[in-house]
Amino acid sequence: MATTEIERLIQQLAKLPGLGPRSSRRVALHLLKRRAAALEPLIAALTQAAERVRPCGVCGNLDTTDPCALCGDARRDESLICVVEDVADLWALERGAIYRGRYHVLGGVLSALDGVGPEDLHIAGLVERARAEAVKEVIVATSATVDGQTTAHYITDRLAGCGVVVSHLAHGVPMGGELEYLDDGTLAAALKARRPY
Amino acid sequence: MATTEIERLIQQLAKLPGLGPRSSRRVALHLLKRRAAALEPLIAALTQAAERVRPCGVCGNLDTTDPCALCGDARRDESLICVVEDVADLWALERGAIYRGRYHVLGGVLSALDGVGPEDLHIAGLVERARAEAVKEVIVATSATVDGQTTAHYITDRLAGCGVVVSHLAHGVPMGGELEYLDDGTLAAALKARRPY
Repeated sequence: MATTEIERLIQQLAKLPGLGPRSSRRVALHLLKRRAAALEPLIAALTQAAERVRPCGVCGNLDTTDPCALCGDARRDESLICVVEDVADLWALERGAIYRGRYHVLGGVLSALDGVGPEDLHIAGLVERARAEAVKEVIVATSATVDGQTTAHYITDRLAGCGVVVSHLAHGVPMGGELEYLDDGTLAAALKARRPY
Repeated sequence: MATTEIERLIQQLAKLPGLGPRSSRRVALHLLKRRAAALEPLIAALTQAAERVRPCGVCGNLDTTDPCALCGDARRDESLICVVEDVADLWALERGAIYRGRYHVLGGVLSALDGVGPEDLHIAGLVERARAEAVKEVIVATSATVDGQTTAHYITDRLAGCGVVVSHLAHGVPMGGELEYLDDGTLAAALKARRPY
């Protein structure tokens, strides 16, 4: 159909999450038809990101500096560490702009099915950080999935004896959620964790 | 939230068709976490395409050679020219592997709303090509939309006196289509163009 260079571009685009063969053809054509307006700025942005963005050696966040801007920010509360599965979760919490402590990115969750064990995650670094004098509390903010909760329990066990309080995010009815459409598990958790007005 | 380089990458990705802010964050993170496996091959594919792919001076197809591989292929029937709106339509016809003539890419359709006039499309080049001795038939394969059909009529008028047969694609029930779910326009066209067994 198309020439080798175009085929290769379509193949690479089709590997991106959310893009299939049809949408990657559409994206490739969009880029090739808009060289100056779309293709060249995208190459520049990708190249700059590839050259400059690295994982932070302390928390695992992605940034151009190491330690990252969040770890280096003296205004952030260093007594609090929020443990997240992935950088995407860190971004989601930062968008909320409600949390002002530090982070620790695990880089995944324990998963027997996918063969992910504790040594595949950044847990040793977390335990080391939690031993530091300044750290008072570790908030385990893994997903409310089976793997996420297994990971949370494992981390809680590993942090025993580090002299920190280990907490987790509240489970309950999401804001704007209608009871009628909520699953039984969430309703049970919300009822169990009910709080006085 | 994220650092400038990551923000810029997300912004560039969000401009691609079919990607919004959320999916472009996901794609950016996917790329940044898989530097060697995804980010670098994508940069290489984009750079190669940007350097080497150009529109064909004859038909408007995108290729690394000019004239393109289709125009230069002596096995293709040079007496037939199929007029398409866009390179995507050319790719669709080539995937079908049923058409073995030449192409002509208009680069859009006439559209009063979008301010696209005849001078914005590659129509002059088509008329010139149609005047050549070898060309016997021009198949106008624009979309079956109002703008596509307007463009088809305009092209038919422009090709009058070029000594070529001008034809268009058949309209009717698509293969696998169920009558119950077809629109009135398609049913009317199919009925009108009915053919004996």
